[in-house]
Amino acid sequence: MKTEAPDTESFAAVAWRAGRLRLLDQRRLPGEIVYLDYDSAQAVAGAITAMVTRGAPAIGIAAAYAVALAGRAAWQMAGGAWRQAIEADLDTLAAARPTAVNLRWAIAKMRRAFPAITGDPEAALLARVYVSETRPALQGARLTCWELQRARIPCTLLVDGAIAGLMRDSRIHWLIVGADRIAANGDVANKTGTYAHALAAKYHGVKVMVVAPAATVDLALCSGAAIPIEQRPPHEVTAIHGGPLAPAGVTAENPAFDITPRALVDALVSERGVVARPDPEKMRAVFGAETPPG
Amino acid sequence: MKTEAPDTESFAAVAWRAGRLRLLDQRRLPGEIVYLDYDSAQAVAGAITAMVTRGAPAIGIAAAYAVALAGRAAWQMAGGAWRQAIEADLDTLAAARPTAVNLRWAIAKMRRAFPAITGDPEAALLARVYVSETRPALQGARLTCWELQRARIPCTLLVDGAIAGLMRDSRIHWLIVGADRIAANGDVANKTGTYAHALAAKYHGVKVMVVAPAATVDLALCSGAAIPIEQRPPHEVTAIHGGPLAPAGVTAENPAFDITPRALVDALVSERGVVARPDPEKMRAVFGAETPPG
Repeated sequence: MKTEAPDTESFAAVAWRAGRLRLLDQRRLPGEIVYLDYDSAQAVAGAITAMVTRGAPAIGIAAAYAVALAGRAAWQMAGGAWRQAIEADLDTLAAARPTAVNLRWAIAKMRRAFPAITGDPEAALLARVYVSETRPALQGARLTCWELQRARIPCTLLVDGAIAGLMRDSRIHWLIVGADRIAANGDVANKTGTYAHALAAKYHGVKVMVVAPAATVDLALCSGAAIPIEQRPPHEVTAIHGGPLAPAGVTAENPAFDITPRALVDALVSERGVVARPDPEKMRAVFGAETPPG
Repeated sequence: MKTEAPDTESFAAVAWRAGRLRLLDQRRLPGEIVYLDYDSAQAVAGAITAMVTRGAPAIGIAAAYAVALAGRAAWQMAGGAWRQAIEADLDTLAAARPTAVNLRWAIAKMRRAFPAITGDPEAALLARVYVSETRPALQGARLTCWELQRARIPCTLLVDGAIAGLMRDSRIHWLIVGADRIAANGDVANKTGTYAHALAAKYHGVKVMVVAPAATVDLALCSGAAIPIEQRPPHEVTAIHGGPLAPAGVTAENPAFDITPRALVDALVSERGVVARPDPEKMRAVFGAETPPG
């Protein structure tokens, strides 16, 4: 546990930073902004008891991260027997505050994920993000890398065409993409290249997660076929930084988005929860209530 | 048929140019370099009879192209009944020179391909090439487009991530790739991105053709797993034209090649012929004799 200088760029009360849990010390607000870093479940339990973090939702989130820390320690101690070794830490965590139901809710929710974990649970901390550059506008290279750098999440940049090779080498466990529009059946429109990544993921057994706010869902469109695809100017493909990438006179097509059919989507994550393997019925159940304006 | 100004860039005796057959008029060599363009099988038959093109192999190639012209005319005249409508042209072609066996050999070989043609045979003339840009070194954008322009083959450039969407829209019939090394079992190492394209092709029923000289085959390597993958400098991914594409300090990986397993390859084309669905036995049979040095 150590005190760090105030981070003027972020005031997240609970954050995962470089493999540790960072809590904003709420005891010292508003006079001082102090962050404390934790690398064990016991230490987090102590912080919850001492009210470093408070408020039922924040306690629940901190406890969930603490379960991840406990999993790492249990694996380091007991290897494949980590499921037994983690129990003492989970008991300590659950006892940190007697009232907050979120604490026990988060622990129970994390525990339900245990059966799906094979091998080192450290892998479940998404140890490194491989970022596809996302040609032609390079949102992956320019924006995603920048955001991951600021969140101090280790990342490695690759050209779009190299991602399938990484999947083949079992170096990718989840494909995580955004969405620009999601149809009522769960089909997803997202930046061009998403569909190719999703196909490669399907082939290699890599799971596909779509992360988007509920406002991205358009229940008026029954499927992805109804989503209009913006065609952007060809020069975005044929030139960059004012210099040509192709011979003069070459014709180019530049569809800004592509459609990933719901059959390739394992999880759709929004502020309304997780829709596993979306279909029209599940979509209606979760997003059927009025969607807030984007 | 029309006479064009000499093309100082190419002396191909027989060439397909913009949907027509171009023959170097061998009657006027060496004094003059004159190209004649033909857009009907009858006209090509006349050129063969008149010895515009001569030599058994060149006659065979010209006749094969003439069958394609005949197919187009028959489709325009008779639609789905083109197989009957083409026969008169094939008879005219076969009678153009009485001795050259290549003439009848080429016609018979083309005829054997008829059953596989569905719909408009014009599609079999590979009407347009969609070129993937091939990041990071942009060989597709810079070199393939340039070569296609010079060969006057219509082409359209797209970012690598857009190709799968075209396949989904049934706009691509063949994926054609090169190879940098081919293992004894038919696994193919080629520029990064090939594997992702091949996976998308497999998913959409698009056929995959690998075109490479026999010298690319390395029978000493039993599979693609034994092919070393060159890792190129990260700056090729993170910068271009001297300008950055990503934030400072970003880590990048830059594998120059990837491996496409033989199971995804429908045809391996070299100067030794076509190996359909390569496997170790076929590879040994075709490439087992000493491979010429690259």
